[in-house]
Amino acid sequence: MIDIIEKTRDGIALSYDDIEHLVAGIVDNTWPDYQLSAWLMAVVLNGLTDVESFWLTGAMAFSHPQPDPLGLVDKHSTGGVGDKTTLVLAPLMASLGLPMAKMSGRGLGHTGGTLDKLESIPGFKTTLDVEDIKRQVEEIGVAVVAQSGELAPADRRLYALRDVTGTVNNISLIASSIMSKKLAAGTPNLVLDVKVGSGAFMANLEQARALAQLMVRIGRYYNRNVTALITSMQQPLGWAVGNAIEVNEAMDCLQQRGPADLREEVLALAAELIHLAHGTDLNKAHAEARAALEDGRAWTKFTQWVARQGGSPQALDGPLPLAPVRREWHASTAGRIASLNTRGIGQVALNLGAGRHRLEDAVDPAVGLLCYVKVGQVIQPGDLLGVVYARTNDDAQKALDGLAQTVRYGETTQRDNDSGLILDRVTTVDMPT
Amino acid sequence: MIDIIEKTRDGIALSYDDIEHLVAGIVDNTWPDYQLSAWLMAVVLNGLTDVESFWLTGAMAFSHPQPDPLGLVDKHSTGGVGDKTTLVLAPLMASLGLPMAKMSGRGLGHTGGTLDKLESIPGFKTTLDVEDIKRQVEEIGVAVVAQSGELAPADRRLYALRDVTGTVNNISLIASSIMSKKLAAGTPNLVLDVKVGSGAFMANLEQARALAQLMVRIGRYYNRNVTALITSMQQPLGWAVGNAIEVNEAMDCLQQRGPADLREEVLALAAELIHLAHGTDLNKAHAEARAALEDGRAWTKFTQWVARQGGSPQALDGPLPLAPVRREWHASTAGRIASLNTRGIGQVALNLGAGRHRLEDAVDPAVGLLCYVKVGQVIQPGDLLGVVYARTNDDAQKALDGLAQTVRYGETTQRDNDSGLILDRVTTVDMPT
Repeated sequence: MIDIIEKTRDGIALSYDDIEHLVAGIVDNTWPDYQLSAWLMAVVLNGLTDVESFWLTGAMAFSHPQPDPLGLVDKHSTGGVGDKTTLVLAPLMASLGLPMAKMSGRGLGHTGGTLDKLESIPGFKTTLDVEDIKRQVEEIGVAVVAQSGELAPADRRLYALRDVTGTVNNISLIASSIMSKKLAAGTPNLVLDVKVGSGAFMANLEQARALAQLMVRIGRYYNRNVTALITSMQQPLGWAVGNAIEVNEAMDCLQQRGPADLREEVLALAAELIHLAHGTDLNKAHAEARAALEDGRAWTKFTQWVARQGGSPQALDGPLPLAPVRREWHASTAGRIASLNTRGIGQVALNLGAGRHRLEDAVDPAVGLLCYVKVGQVIQPGDLLGVVYARTNDDAQKALDGLAQTVRYGETTQRDNDSGLILDRVTTVDMPT
Repeated sequence: MIDIIEKTRDGIALSYDDIEHLVAGIVDNTWPDYQLSAWLMAVVLNGLTDVESFWLTGAMAFSHPQPDPLGLVDKHSTGGVGDKTTLVLAPLMASLGLPMAKMSGRGLGHTGGTLDKLESIPGFKTTLDVEDIKRQVEEIGVAVVAQSGELAPADRRLYALRDVTGTVNNISLIASSIMSKKLAAGTPNLVLDVKVGSGAFMANLEQARALAQLMVRIGRYYNRNVTALITSMQQPLGWAVGNAIEVNEAMDCLQQRGPADLREEVLALAAELIHLAHGTDLNKAHAEARAALEDGRAWTKFTQWVARQGGSPQALDGPLPLAPVRREWHASTAGRIASLNTRGIGQVALNLGAGRHRLEDAVDPAVGLLCYVKVGQVIQPGDLLGVVYARTNDDAQKALDGLAQTVRYGETTQRDNDSGLILDRVTTVDMPT
């Protein structure tokens, strides 16, 4: 292990055998944490080559026997605020005959988790055994469940260590963590949603593009169909941030209502998956996805899915109930919105109780907020910028104070290529020779 | 702690408070090893500033109450092969009225330890309690004892971790480790012997000079008198490598016999200490040291010292007995010695049993070797290059085979400024502003 640490420290590429040895020692706990963390820091400061990243990802993905893939399509997002796309995309794909079985995570910090959102539907169960998931996907084409913890165990250990050693931010480590789980799950067609901006892990477009390209390369190296979209987190996606409140917005989207950006992003992701799975022309794929959303097929699939995972039928009749203290957020100044601190908005929702500071915390499904304001918008004093749903007046006031601090007025400083929702698309990449 | 790791990772200098916080957490075990090792790797790759190095050294040195200093002068060597200078220097300084109480270590790997050498004198005790040491130094002016383990406890933890995480080789970490123990001991005058070459940790003169300058700066920052000599390890110092065999060579040196380079180095170190302690002109200091060595004062002090720490009086009558299998090493080729692998020679002695592979190993005091050959020397086939003292014929043969591989013939490739024994002297340094 010291040999491996010293190679990476000195900028010497690891061999295939080095990396197999490294990952085997991570899985069987031969390598102590203090050696792994020294190696991780050397990776953060010196980087890994693409080929090292391929081997690391493969070694982590294939350290354990592979299950049969459960779906034909899958999506991964690098995490943002207000990102409820899975809730719309999964039934939409199923309604198009492309089964999607997604292992999802819980929220931590300023980003929410799909499982927490789904569990705000009364009765909805997210821990199913493998046979039940398999049968459900065969019968209705959609399932979203908690990760069993058995996929890519090396990643689990590295991930926990990176979090406490300042070694999160390296594209090889991020890419291999994401892609090892996706390779292990075996789904042949994958769309990646790489988020960039104030609410995302990638702070700028160049970083996001480098990460996207590396993940697409890793997919190609292991013969998967992978496309990455780089999407903006300069503001929350849609309006809703929370749990029940995001499910309500997703149900709106499935019924031709709600914010345009959520709908645009869902359709863009869906079109990529149709294109990857069937080779359909991208415009035609987009039209197919739009049709299934507009004619109610996706909504019908959503209702089947919720019922199948135990969700209450009443939940589908109207919006899920929210926390009792409703307070509006109004503008006090006139001006143009120069920027939003999206992470700050996520923090406000977190502090209302919608998220977790620690993994063992419980979330409050009914609290949350709506943020109507988008970057570039011109506002007048008194304009309605959003709504807060809190448990107490005190919580609500803190949330309004917090939201007021997330807005900066003035001319936008963003560059042209940072504007819009879908900032870039990475599908063909040069492979290292 | 993550904050501190991230600063060093991102090349942001730590504040005084950061470093106090870091060291306090090392001492009280608040910081887990995996965080420390990530930080250490960030230090190795990004470096620390001089001021960070000062604070780190001070925080480690002064985390515990300071004892009164036991001596007036001290020496530290960065470690080499055949380095028995302490055995001559300590009684020499005492004979000049400059008490020297040295905490010493045991050998590990290819470098020997002063304690192991002293313990090859029958009866010699190296673990004394503090009061006994104090009284001994007051009465005879010299003591060399085992480190109690209570000086600079933060360094002990970092040192162990660096060894297993590929983070040994950084001048700030090396300098703060050495100087924290020296500052904690409180001795006002210190000479550093920074060794460079094939048997030393510093592979080239630039590295050695950078380390020497940093240590002299640290000393100046904390108001100590510090001079560093940079000395050559292109070959072992003197002829003897082992334990009893090195004591014999030291006793020879104290009685006007033995190799010239050992004598030269002892006198150079002694002159620096006299100069630091009394301000004596360096040439005059050198003459004073030479006089005490030549007129037998240093030898008399040595005999008092050995007796006082329990050493057998018979040991002083003649050479200590060596291992029974004596085999000569003869040259098989004619030519000029281009280079010696000094570390390799240390390894041969180690494999004979003179050193430790692991800290818990026992050393054999009677095995060892003499290496008469020096770089630049012209030799003829059959010339006597050295002698091996082993326990078995088999061990002796392996040692001779090993020694043969440490010699390279041809023109020397060393640059002019690498030649000679004392390569440089660092005493005045620019301080960071």
